[in-house]
Amino acid sequence: MITSASNMQMKNLVRLQKKGRARREQDVFVVEGMKMYREAPREFIEKVYISKSFSEKAEAGELLGGRNVEVVDDRVFQSISDTKTPQGILAVIRRQHYTLEQVVGGEKPLVLVLENIQDPGNLGTILRTGEGAGVTGIVMSADTVDIYNPKTIRSTMGSVYRMPFCYAEDMDQVMRNLKQKGISVYAAHLKGSADYDAVDYRGSCGFLIGNEGSGLSERLAAQADGYIRIPMCGEVESLNAAVASAVLMYEAFRQRKS
Amino acid sequence: MITSASNMQMKNLVRLQKKGRARREQDVFVVEGMKMYREAPREFIEKVYISKSFSEKAEAGELLGGRNVEVVDDRVFQSISDTKTPQGILAVIRRQHYTLEQVVGGEKPLVLVLENIQDPGNLGTILRTGEGAGVTGIVMSADTVDIYNPKTIRSTMGSVYRMPFCYAEDMDQVMRNLKQKGISVYAAHLKGSADYDAVDYRGSCGFLIGNEGSGLSERLAAQADGYIRIPMCGEVESLNAAVASAVLMYEAFRQRKS
Repeated sequence: MITSASNMQMKNLVRLQKKGRARREQDVFVVEGMKMYREAPREFIEKVYISKSFSEKAEAGELLGGRNVEVVDDRVFQSISDTKTPQGILAVIRRQHYTLEQVVGGEKPLVLVLENIQDPGNLGTILRTGEGAGVTGIVMSADTVDIYNPKTIRSTMGSVYRMPFCYAEDMDQVMRNLKQKGISVYAAHLKGSADYDAVDYRGSCGFLIGNEGSGLSERLAAQADGYIRIPMCGEVESLNAAVASAVLMYEAFRQRKS
Repeated sequence: MITSASNMQMKNLVRLQKKGRARREQDVFVVEGMKMYREAPREFIEKVYISKSFSEKAEAGELLGGRNVEVVDDRVFQSISDTKTPQGILAVIRRQHYTLEQVVGGEKPLVLVLENIQDPGNLGTILRTGEGAGVTGIVMSADTVDIYNPKTIRSTMGSVYRMPFCYAEDMDQVMRNLKQKGISVYAAHLKGSADYDAVDYRGSCGFLIGNEGSGLSERLAAQADGYIRIPMCGEVESLNAAVASAVLMYEAFRQRKS
Protein backbone atom coordinates (compact mmCIF):
# COMPACT_ATOMS: atom_id res chain seq x y z
CA MET A 1 0.00 0.00 0.00
CA ILE A 2 1.16 3.51 -0.81
CA THR A 3 1.10 5.53 2.40
CA SER A 4 3.03 8.66 1.51
CA ALA A 5 2.10 11.63 -0.66
CA SER A 6 5.77 11.99 -1.56
CA ASN A 7 5.75 8.61 -3.31
CA MET A 8 6.89 9.21 -6.90
CA GLN A 9 3.68 7.84 -8.42
CA MET A 10 1.54 10.08 -6.17
CA LYS A 11 3.60 13.13 -7.04
CA ASN A 12 3.20 12.33 -10.72
CA LEU A 13 -0.58 11.87 -10.36
CA VAL A 14 -0.91 15.31 -8.78
CA ARG A 15 1.06 16.73 -11.71
CA LEU A 16 -1.14 14.90 -14.19
CA GLN A 17 -4.28 16.28 -12.51
CA LYS A 18 -3.00 19.85 -12.54
CA LYS A 19 -0.79 20.27 -15.57
CA GLY A 20 -1.87 19.96 -19.18
CA ARG A 21 1.78 19.85 -20.10
CA ALA A 22 2.50 16.78 -17.95
CA ARG A 23 -0.52 15.02 -19.49
CA ARG A 24 0.69 15.91 -22.97
CA GLU A 25 4.25 14.79 -22.38
CA GLN A 26 3.18 11.44 -20.92
CA ASP A 27 0.35 11.08 -23.46
CA VAL A 28 -2.15 10.09 -20.76
CA PHE A 29 -4.99 11.54 -18.69
CA VAL A 30 -6.58 10.76 -15.34
CA VAL A 31 -10.17 9.69 -14.75
CA GLU A 32 -11.97 9.29 -11.43
CA GLY A 33 -14.98 7.46 -10.13
CA MET A 34 -16.76 4.21 -10.83
CA LYS A 35 -18.60 5.28 -13.97
CA MET A 36 -15.49 6.68 -15.64
CA TYR A 37 -13.49 3.57 -14.75
CA ARG A 38 -16.21 1.18 -15.91
CA GLU A 39 -16.56 2.88 -19.29
CA ALA A 40 -12.83 3.20 -19.99
CA PRO A 41 -11.70 1.08 -22.95
CA ARG A 42 -9.76 -1.77 -21.30
CA GLU A 43 -6.81 -1.59 -23.68
CA PHE A 44 -6.20 2.07 -22.85
CA ILE A 45 -6.01 1.70 -19.07
CA GLU A 46 -2.39 2.12 -17.96
CA LYS A 47 -2.78 1.93 -14.21
CA VAL A 48 -5.51 1.87 -11.56
CA TYR A 49 -5.34 3.27 -8.03
CA ILE A 50 -7.93 2.63 -5.33
CA SER A 51 -8.24 3.97 -1.80
CA LYS A 52 -7.79 1.66 1.18
CA SER A 53 -11.43 1.98 2.21
CA PHE A 54 -12.68 1.33 -1.34
CA SER A 55 -10.48 -1.77 -1.55
CA GLU A 56 -12.36 -3.23 1.42
CA LYS A 57 -15.76 -2.97 -0.29
CA ALA A 58 -17.33 -5.95 -2.07
CA GLU A 59 -17.98 -3.85 -5.19
CA ALA A 60 -14.26 -3.21 -5.58
CA GLY A 61 -13.70 -6.91 -6.31
CA GLU A 62 -16.53 -7.02 -8.84
CA LEU A 63 -15.45 -3.82 -10.53
CA LEU A 64 -11.78 -4.70 -10.80
CA GLY A 65 -12.21 -8.39 -11.68
CA GLY A 66 -8.74 -9.46 -10.68
CA ARG A 67 -6.98 -6.48 -12.27
CA ASN A 68 -3.74 -5.55 -10.61
CA VAL A 69 -4.16 -2.23 -8.81
CA GLU A 70 -2.30 -0.05 -6.35
CA VAL A 71 -3.98 0.50 -3.01
CA VAL A 72 -3.50 3.98 -1.58
CA ASP A 73 -4.00 5.20 1.97
CA ASP A 74 -7.25 7.25 2.20
CA ARG A 75 -5.56 10.48 3.19
CA VAL A 76 -3.05 10.19 0.36
CA PHE A 77 -5.83 9.27 -2.05
CA GLN A 78 -7.60 12.50 -1.13
CA SER A 79 -4.46 14.41 -2.09
CA ILE A 80 -4.33 12.89 -5.60
CA SER A 81 -8.05 13.31 -6.22
CA ASP A 82 -9.51 16.34 -7.98
CA THR A 83 -12.84 15.96 -6.17
CA LYS A 84 -13.88 16.85 -2.64
CA THR A 85 -15.45 13.48 -1.93
CA PRO A 86 -13.49 10.93 -4.00
CA GLN A 87 -15.20 7.65 -4.84
CA GLY A 88 -11.88 5.89 -4.19
CA ILE A 89 -10.98 4.80 -7.71
CA LEU A 90 -8.77 6.63 -10.19
CA ALA A 91 -7.17 5.46 -13.42
CA VAL A 92 -4.46 6.67 -15.76
CA ILE A 93 -5.67 6.31 -19.34
CA ARG A 94 -3.60 6.42 -22.51
CA ARG A 95 -4.82 9.06 -24.93
CA GLN A 96 -6.46 8.15 -28.20
CA HIS A 97 -5.48 10.12 -31.28
CA TYR A 98 -7.87 10.81 -34.09
CA THR A 99 -7.11 12.00 -37.59
CA LEU A 100 -9.14 14.87 -39.05
CA GLU A 101 -10.61 12.22 -41.36
CA GLN A 102 -11.98 10.29 -38.37
CA VAL A 103 -13.39 13.47 -36.85
CA VAL A 104 -15.14 14.86 -39.92
CA GLY A 105 -15.41 11.84 -42.22
CA GLY A 106 -18.03 9.21 -42.94
CA GLU A 107 -21.38 9.54 -44.62
CA LYS A 108 -23.25 12.80 -44.00
CA PRO A 109 -21.14 13.92 -41.07
CA LEU A 110 -22.47 16.31 -38.44
CA VAL A 111 -19.46 18.24 -37.17
CA LEU A 112 -18.89 20.68 -34.34
CA VAL A 113 -16.13 23.28 -34.65
CA LEU A 114 -15.26 25.01 -31.38
CA GLU A 115 -13.21 28.16 -31.17
CA ASN A 116 -11.57 29.13 -27.89
CA ILE A 117 -14.12 27.58 -25.51
CA GLN A 118 -12.63 28.31 -22.08
CA ASP A 119 -14.89 26.74 -19.49
CA PRO A 120 -13.89 23.11 -18.83
CA GLY A 121 -17.43 22.18 -17.77
CA ASN A 122 -18.89 23.65 -20.96
CA LEU A 123 -16.47 21.66 -23.12
CA GLY A 124 -17.26 18.40 -21.33
CA THR A 125 -21.00 19.04 -21.56
CA ILE A 126 -20.65 19.75 -25.28
CA LEU A 127 -18.93 16.37 -25.80
CA ARG A 128 -21.63 14.58 -23.82
CA THR A 129 -24.47 16.30 -25.67
CA GLY A 130 -22.67 15.83 -28.99
CA GLU A 131 -22.51 12.08 -28.53
CA GLY A 132 -26.20 12.09 -27.59
CA ALA A 133 -27.15 14.09 -30.69
CA GLY A 134 -25.18 11.86 -33.04
CA VAL A 135 -22.34 14.28 -33.78
CA THR A 136 -19.57 12.69 -35.87
CA GLY A 137 -16.69 14.56 -34.30
CA ILE A 138 -15.45 17.78 -32.75
CA VAL A 139 -12.67 20.04 -34.03
CA MET A 140 -11.25 22.54 -31.54
CA SER A 141 -9.02 25.55 -32.10
CA ALA A 142 -5.63 25.25 -30.39
CA ASP A 143 -6.63 27.89 -27.81
CA THR A 144 -9.61 25.87 -26.58
CA VAL A 145 -9.32 24.63 -22.98
CA ASP A 146 -7.61 21.23 -22.51
CA ILE A 147 -10.11 18.43 -23.08
CA TYR A 148 -8.18 16.33 -20.54
CA ASN A 149 -8.73 18.86 -17.75
CA PRO A 150 -10.23 16.86 -14.82
CA LYS A 151 -13.39 19.03 -14.83
CA THR A 152 -13.90 18.48 -18.55
CA ILE A 153 -13.37 14.73 -18.20
CA ARG A 154 -15.98 14.61 -15.42
CA SER A 155 -18.54 16.62 -17.39
CA THR A 156 -18.22 14.33 -20.42
CA MET A 157 -19.66 11.45 -18.33
CA GLY A 158 -17.65 9.05 -20.49
CA SER A 159 -18.14 10.62 -23.92
CA VAL A 160 -14.44 11.52 -23.93
CA TYR A 161 -13.76 7.84 -24.64
CA ARG A 162 -16.09 7.70 -27.61
CA MET A 163 -16.39 11.07 -29.33
CA PRO A 164 -13.69 11.61 -31.97
CA PHE A 165 -12.00 14.99 -31.57
CA CYS A 166 -8.87 16.90 -32.49
CA TYR A 167 -7.18 20.21 -31.85
CA ALA A 168 -6.20 22.22 -34.92
CA GLU A 169 -3.46 24.84 -35.14
CA ASP A 170 -4.65 26.16 -38.48
CA MET A 171 -8.39 26.79 -38.48
CA ASP A 172 -8.31 28.20 -42.03
CA GLN A 173 -7.01 24.84 -43.18
CA VAL A 174 -9.79 23.07 -41.27
CA MET A 175 -12.42 25.26 -42.95
CA ARG A 176 -10.94 24.57 -46.39
CA ASN A 177 -10.97 20.88 -45.60
CA LEU A 178 -14.62 20.97 -44.56
CA LYS A 179 -15.56 22.82 -47.73
CA GLN A 180 -13.69 20.28 -49.87
CA LYS A 181 -15.75 17.55 -48.25
CA GLY A 182 -18.95 19.40 -49.05
CA ILE A 183 -19.75 20.08 -45.40
CA SER A 184 -21.87 23.23 -44.97
CA VAL A 185 -20.73 25.07 -41.88
CA TYR A 186 -23.11 27.38 -40.02
CA ALA A 187 -21.86 29.96 -37.56
CA ALA A 188 -23.93 30.51 -34.43
CA HIS A 189 -23.84 34.29 -34.51
CA LEU A 190 -25.81 37.11 -32.94
CA LYS A 191 -25.81 38.78 -36.35
CA GLY A 192 -27.37 35.70 -37.93
CA SER A 193 -30.30 36.51 -40.17
CA ALA A 194 -31.69 32.97 -40.43
CA ASP A 195 -33.36 31.34 -37.45
CA TYR A 196 -31.48 28.14 -36.60
CA ASP A 197 -34.56 26.02 -37.27
CA ALA A 198 -35.13 27.44 -40.75
CA VAL A 199 -32.03 25.72 -42.17
CA ASP A 200 -31.88 22.18 -43.57
CA TYR A 201 -29.29 20.12 -41.70
CA ARG A 202 -30.03 16.76 -43.32
CA GLY A 203 -26.92 16.82 -45.50
CA SER A 204 -23.27 17.00 -44.44
CA CYS A 205 -23.07 19.96 -42.10
CA GLY A 206 -21.42 21.52 -39.11
CA PHE A 207 -21.74 24.26 -36.52
CA LEU A 208 -19.18 26.88 -35.52
CA ILE A 209 -19.35 27.81 -31.83
CA GLY A 210 -17.26 30.64 -30.39
CA ASN A 211 -15.86 31.71 -27.04
CA GLU A 212 -18.22 32.17 -24.07
CA GLY A 213 -17.59 35.88 -23.71
CA SER A 214 -16.53 37.17 -27.09
CA GLY A 215 -18.13 34.73 -29.53
CA LEU A 216 -16.49 33.75 -32.83
CA SER A 217 -13.50 35.61 -34.23
CA GLU A 218 -14.38 37.61 -37.34
CA ARG A 219 -11.79 35.69 -39.31
CA LEU A 220 -13.37 32.31 -38.62
CA ALA A 221 -16.97 33.53 -38.83
CA ALA A 222 -16.23 34.99 -42.27
CA GLN A 223 -15.48 31.49 -43.56
CA ALA A 224 -18.87 30.05 -42.60
CA ASP A 225 -21.45 29.13 -45.23
CA GLY A 226 -24.13 31.00 -43.30
CA TYR A 227 -24.91 32.76 -40.03
CA ILE A 228 -27.71 31.36 -37.94
CA ARG A 229 -29.24 32.69 -34.77
CA ILE A 230 -31.15 31.20 -31.91
CA PRO A 231 -34.05 33.57 -31.19
CA MET A 232 -34.17 34.87 -27.62
CA CYS A 233 -37.01 36.45 -25.65
CA GLY A 234 -36.72 38.97 -22.85
CA GLU A 235 -33.42 40.74 -22.30
CA VAL A 236 -31.21 37.71 -22.87
CA GLU A 237 -28.20 38.70 -24.95
CA SER A 238 -26.76 35.24 -25.51
CA LEU A 239 -27.06 31.67 -24.32
CA ASN A 240 -24.46 29.64 -22.47
CA ALA A 241 -22.11 28.03 -25.05
CA ALA A 242 -23.03 24.47 -24.05
CA VAL A 243 -26.73 25.32 -24.20
CA ALA A 244 -26.46 27.03 -27.60
CA SER A 245 -24.54 24.03 -28.99
CA ALA A 246 -27.16 21.68 -27.56
CA VAL A 247 -30.06 23.55 -29.16
CA LEU A 248 -28.30 23.47 -32.54
CA MET A 249 -27.14 19.86 -32.37
CA TYR A 250 -30.56 18.63 -31.29
CA GLU A 251 -32.28 20.59 -34.05
CA ALA A 252 -29.98 18.88 -36.56
CA PHE A 253 -30.64 15.50 -34.92
CA ARG A 254 -34.42 16.11 -34.98
CA GLN A 255 -34.32 16.84 -38.71
CA ARG A 256 -32.01 13.93 -39.50
CA LYS A 257 -33.93 11.24 -37.65
CA SER A 258 -37.28 11.95 -39.29
CA MET B 1 -13.13 54.17 2.74
CA ILE B 2 -13.50 50.79 4.43
CA THR B 3 -10.03 49.40 5.09
CA SER B 4 -10.67 46.52 7.44
CA ALA B 5 -12.18 43.08 6.83
CA SER B 6 -13.50 43.15 10.37
CA ASN B 7 -15.75 46.11 9.56
CA MET B 8 -19.33 45.06 10.39
CA GLN B 9 -20.58 45.60 6.83
CA MET B 10 -17.73 43.51 5.41
CA LYS B 11 -18.38 40.70 7.86
CA ASN B 12 -22.04 40.73 6.92
CA LEU B 13 -21.24 40.65 3.19
CA VAL B 14 -19.09 37.56 3.66
CA ARG B 15 -22.00 35.94 5.52
CA LEU B 16 -24.42 36.93 2.75
CA GLN B 17 -22.12 35.39 0.14
CA LYS B 18 -21.75 32.13 2.01
CA LYS B 19 -24.96 31.52 3.92
CA GLY B 20 -28.37 30.99 2.41
CA ARG B 21 -29.80 31.51 5.86
CA ALA B 22 -28.30 35.01 6.24
CA ARG B 23 -29.67 35.95 2.80
CA ARG B 24 -33.09 34.63 3.78
CA GLU B 25 -33.18 36.40 7.13
CA GLN B 26 -32.16 39.74 5.64
CA ASP B 27 -34.30 39.16 2.51
CA VAL B 28 -31.47 40.22 0.19
CA PHE B 29 -28.84 38.75 -2.11
CA VAL B 30 -25.45 39.87 -3.43
CA VAL B 31 -24.55 40.45 -7.06
CA GLU B 32 -21.12 41.16 -8.53
CA GLY B 33 -19.75 42.69 -11.67
CA MET B 34 -20.69 45.43 -14.08
CA LYS B 35 -23.34 43.53 -16.02
CA MET B 36 -25.18 42.36 -12.90
CA TYR B 37 -25.09 45.88 -11.42
CA ARG B 38 -26.22 47.54 -14.63
CA GLU B 39 -29.21 45.23 -15.04
CA ALA B 40 -30.35 45.37 -11.41
CA PRO B 41 -33.75 47.06 -11.00
CA ARG B 42 -32.86 50.43 -9.43
CA GLU B 43 -35.58 50.28 -6.78
CA PHE B 44 -34.24 46.98 -5.44
CA ILE B 45 -30.64 48.07 -4.91
CA GLU B 46 -29.99 48.44 -1.18
CA LYS B 47 -26.29 49.24 -1.18
CA VAL B 48 -23.34 49.36 -3.56
CA TYR B 49 -19.68 48.68 -2.77
CA ILE B 50 -16.78 49.39 -5.10
CA SER B 51 -13.09 48.69 -4.79
CA LYS B 52 -10.60 51.55 -4.46
CA SER B 53 -9.03 50.87 -7.85
CA PHE B 54 -12.43 50.63 -9.55
CA SER B 55 -13.43 53.96 -7.98
CA GLU B 56 -10.53 55.61 -9.76
CA LYS B 57 -11.69 54.53 -13.22
CA ALA B 58 -13.69 56.82 -15.48
CA GLU B 59 -16.30 54.12 -16.10
CA ALA B 60 -17.10 54.01 -12.39
CA GLY B 61 -18.48 57.54 -12.58
CA GLU B 62 -20.59 56.75 -15.65
CA LEU B 63 -21.87 53.49 -14.21
CA LEU B 64 -22.79 54.86 -10.81
CA GLY B 65 -24.22 58.19 -11.98
CA GLY B 66 -23.88 59.97 -8.66
CA ARG B 67 -25.20 57.07 -6.59
CA ASN B 68 -23.87 56.99 -3.07
CA VAL B 69 -21.49 54.06 -2.69
CA GLU B 70 -19.01 52.70 -0.19
CA VAL B 71 -15.42 52.51 -1.37
CA VAL B 72 -13.53 49.47 -0.11
CA ASP B 73 -9.79 48.84 0.01
CA ASP B 74 -8.78 46.39 -2.79
CA ARG B 75 -7.51 43.71 -0.45
CA VAL B 76 -10.68 43.86 1.65
CA PHE B 77 -12.81 43.86 -1.52
CA GLN B 78 -11.14 40.61 -2.58
CA SER B 79 -12.22 39.08 0.74
CA ILE B 80 -15.90 39.94 0.23
CA SER B 81 -15.94 38.85 -3.41
CA ASP B 82 -16.98 35.35 -4.48
CA THR B 83 -14.79 35.52 -7.60
CA LYS B 84 -11.06 35.11 -8.09
CA THR B 85 -10.71 38.28 -10.14
CA PRO B 86 -13.40 40.69 -8.90
CA GLN B 87 -14.50 43.46 -11.26
CA GLY B 88 -14.60 45.81 -8.28
CA ILE B 89 -18.35 46.35 -7.96
CA LEU B 90 -20.78 44.49 -5.74
CA ALA B 91 -24.35 45.28 -4.75
CA VAL B 92 -26.82 44.11 -2.14
CA ILE B 93 -30.21 43.62 -3.78
CA ARG B 94 -33.59 43.26 -2.09
CA ARG B 95 -35.34 40.06 -3.07
CA GLN B 96 -38.44 40.08 -5.19
CA HIS B 97 -41.27 37.76 -4.21
CA TYR B 98 -43.59 36.20 -6.74
CA THR B 99 -46.92 34.53 -6.14
CA LEU B 100 -47.61 31.15 -7.77
CA GLU B 101 -50.09 33.06 -9.94
CA GLN B 102 -47.28 35.26 -11.30
CA VAL B 103 -45.10 32.22 -11.94
CA VAL B 104 -47.63 30.04 -13.74
CA GLY B 105 -50.34 32.49 -14.80
CA GLY B 106 -51.11 34.50 -17.91
CA GLU B 107 -52.24 33.33 -21.30
CA LYS B 108 -50.86 29.97 -22.44
CA PRO B 109 -48.08 29.77 -19.89
CA LEU B 110 -44.94 27.72 -20.47
CA VAL B 111 -43.81 26.57 -17.05
CA LEU B 112 -40.72 24.80 -15.74
CA VAL B 113 -41.00 22.67 -12.61
CA LEU B 114 -37.64 21.72 -11.10
CA GLU B 115 -37.22 19.03 -8.48
CA ASN B 116 -34.09 18.95 -6.35
CA ILE B 117 -31.65 20.48 -8.87
CA GLN B 118 -28.38 20.64 -6.91
CA ASP B 119 -25.78 22.29 -9.14
CA PRO B 120 -25.86 26.09 -8.73
CA GLY B 121 -24.49 26.60 -12.27
CA ASN B 122 -27.17 24.36 -13.76
CA LEU B 123 -29.93 26.28 -11.99
CA GLY B 124 -28.60 29.64 -13.16
CA THR B 125 -28.20 28.39 -16.72
CA ILE B 126 -31.78 27.08 -16.66
CA LEU B 127 -33.06 30.53 -15.65
CA ARG B 128 -31.04 32.21 -18.40
CA THR B 129 -32.19 29.74 -21.06
CA GLY B 130 -35.75 29.89 -19.74
CA GLU B 131 -35.92 33.65 -20.22
CA GLY B 132 -34.50 33.20 -23.72
CA ALA B 133 -37.08 30.56 -24.62
CA GLY B 134 -40.01 32.60 -23.35
CA VAL B 135 -40.73 30.58 -20.22
CA THR B 136 -43.43 32.17 -18.03
CA GLY B 137 -41.98 31.12 -14.69
CA ILE B 138 -40.11 28.46 -12.74
CA VAL B 139 -41.39 26.49 -9.75
CA MET B 140 -38.75 24.74 -7.63
CA SER B 141 -39.13 22.07 -4.97
CA ALA B 142 -37.96 23.22 -1.53
CA ASP B 143 -34.88 20.96 -1.74
CA THR B 144 -33.59 22.68 -4.89
CA VAL B 145 -30.30 24.60 -4.44
CA ASP B 146 -30.63 28.25 -3.34
CA ILE B 147 -31.29 30.45 -6.36
CA TYR B 148 -29.41 33.27 -4.56
CA ASN B 149 -26.19 31.24 -4.34
CA PRO B 150 -23.45 33.46 -5.86
CA LYS B 151 -22.68 30.84 -8.54
CA THR B 152 -26.33 30.62 -9.54
CA ILE B 153 -26.65 34.40 -9.68
CA ARG B 154 -23.59 34.61 -11.96
CA SER B 155 -24.85 31.90 -14.31
CA THR B 156 -28.22 33.62 -14.73
CA MET B 157 -26.45 36.55 -16.44
CA GLY B 158 -29.22 38.82 -15.15
CA SER B 159 -32.25 36.59 -15.71
CA VAL B 160 -32.63 36.31 -11.93
CA TYR B 161 -34.01 39.87 -12.00
CA ARG B 162 -36.61 39.07 -14.63
CA MET B 163 -37.71 35.44 -14.49
CA PRO B 164 -40.57 34.89 -12.03
CA PHE B 165 -39.88 31.94 -9.75
CA CYS B 166 -40.92 30.42 -6.45
CA TYR B 167 -39.98 27.59 -4.11
CA ALA B 168 -42.80 25.25 -3.11
CA GLU B 169 -42.97 23.09 0.01
CA ASP B 170 -45.86 21.03 -1.28
CA MET B 171 -45.23 19.82 -4.83
CA ASP B 172 -48.48 17.80 -4.87
CA GLN B 173 -50.33 21.07 -4.34
CA VAL B 174 -48.35 22.68 -7.17
CA MET B 175 -49.27 19.84 -9.53
CA ARG B 176 -52.96 20.09 -8.57
CA ASN B 177 -52.79 23.82 -9.17
CA LEU B 178 -51.26 23.36 -12.62
CA LYS B 179 -53.95 20.80 -13.53
CA GLN B 180 -56.70 23.18 -12.40
CA LYS B 181 -55.26 25.81 -14.73
CA GLY B 182 -55.32 23.34 -17.62
CA ILE B 183 -51.51 23.23 -17.89
CA SER B 184 -50.31 19.91 -19.33
CA VAL B 185 -47.13 18.88 -17.57
CA TYR B 186 -44.62 16.59 -19.27
CA ALA B 187 -41.97 14.74 -17.31
CA ALA B 188 -38.53 14.44 -18.89
CA HIS B 189 -38.03 10.79 -18.12
CA LEU B 190 -35.77 8.01 -19.35
CA LYS B 191 -38.84 5.77 -19.42
CA GLY B 192 -40.65 8.22 -21.68
CA SER B 193 -42.32 6.56 -24.64
CA ALA B 194 -42.95 9.72 -26.67
CA ASP B 195 -40.07 11.57 -28.28
CA TYR B 196 -40.00 15.12 -26.94
CA ASP B 197 -40.58 16.57 -30.41
CA ALA B 198 -43.69 14.48 -31.08
CA VAL B 199 -45.77 16.39 -28.52
CA ASP B 200 -47.73 19.58 -29.18
CA TYR B 201 -46.59 22.34 -26.81
CA ARG B 202 -48.60 25.17 -28.32
CA GLY B 203 -51.15 25.23 -25.50
CA SER B 204 -50.57 25.83 -21.77
CA CYS B 205 -47.85 23.42 -20.79
CA GLY B 206 -44.90 22.72 -18.58
CA PHE B 207 -41.88 20.48 -18.12
CA LEU B 208 -40.85 18.53 -15.03
CA ILE B 209 -37.06 18.28 -14.63
CA GLY B 210 -35.48 16.13 -11.93
CA ASN B 211 -32.24 15.92 -9.98
CA GLU B 212 -28.93 15.64 -11.88
CA GLY B 213 -28.07 12.20 -10.54
CA SER B 214 -31.32 10.51 -9.62
CA GLY B 215 -33.87 12.17 -11.90
CA LEU B 216 -37.47 12.79 -10.85
CA SER B 217 -38.95 11.20 -7.75
CA GLU B 218 -41.55 8.56 -8.57
CA ARG B 219 -44.14 10.49 -6.62
CA LEU B 220 -43.78 13.62 -8.70
CA ALA B 221 -43.31 11.82 -12.02
CA ALA B 222 -46.55 9.89 -11.41
CA GLN B 223 -48.47 13.18 -11.44
CA ALA B 224 -47.28 14.22 -14.91
CA ASP B 225 -49.65 14.21 -17.88
CA GLY B 226 -47.09 12.35 -19.97
CA TYR B 227 -43.51 11.09 -20.05
CA ILE B 228 -41.31 12.37 -22.81
CA ARG B 229 -37.79 11.41 -23.71
CA ILE B 230 -34.98 13.08 -25.56
CA PRO B 231 -33.49 10.45 -27.89
CA MET B 232 -29.79 9.82 -27.38
CA CYS B 233 -27.22 8.18 -29.66
CA GLY B 234 -24.12 6.30 -28.61
CA GLU B 235 -23.77 5.22 -25.03
CA VAL B 236 -25.10 8.40 -23.47
CA GLU B 237 -27.40 7.55 -20.56
CA SER B 238 -28.69 11.04 -19.85
CA LEU B 239 -28.06 14.68 -20.66
CA ASN B 240 -26.91 17.40 -18.28
CA ALA B 241 -30.01 18.85 -16.56
CA ALA B 242 -29.50 22.35 -18.00
CA VAL B 243 -28.99 20.90 -21.48
CA ALA B 244 -32.08 18.67 -21.27
CA SER B 245 -34.17 21.64 -20.08
CA ALA B 246 -32.81 23.76 -22.93
CA VAL B 247 -33.66 21.19 -25.59
CA LEU B 248 -37.23 20.92 -24.25
CA MET B 249 -37.79 24.65 -23.75
CA TYR B 250 -36.46 25.50 -27.21
CA GLU B 251 -38.62 22.82 -28.84
CA ALA B 252 -41.66 24.39 -27.15
CA PHE B 253 -40.51 27.86 -28.25
CA ARG B 254 -39.94 26.64 -31.81
CA GLN B 255 -43.47 25.27 -32.00
CA ARG B 256 -45.02 28.32 -30.36
CA LYS B 257 -43.38 30.96 -32.52
CA SER B 258 -44.44 29.42 -35.85
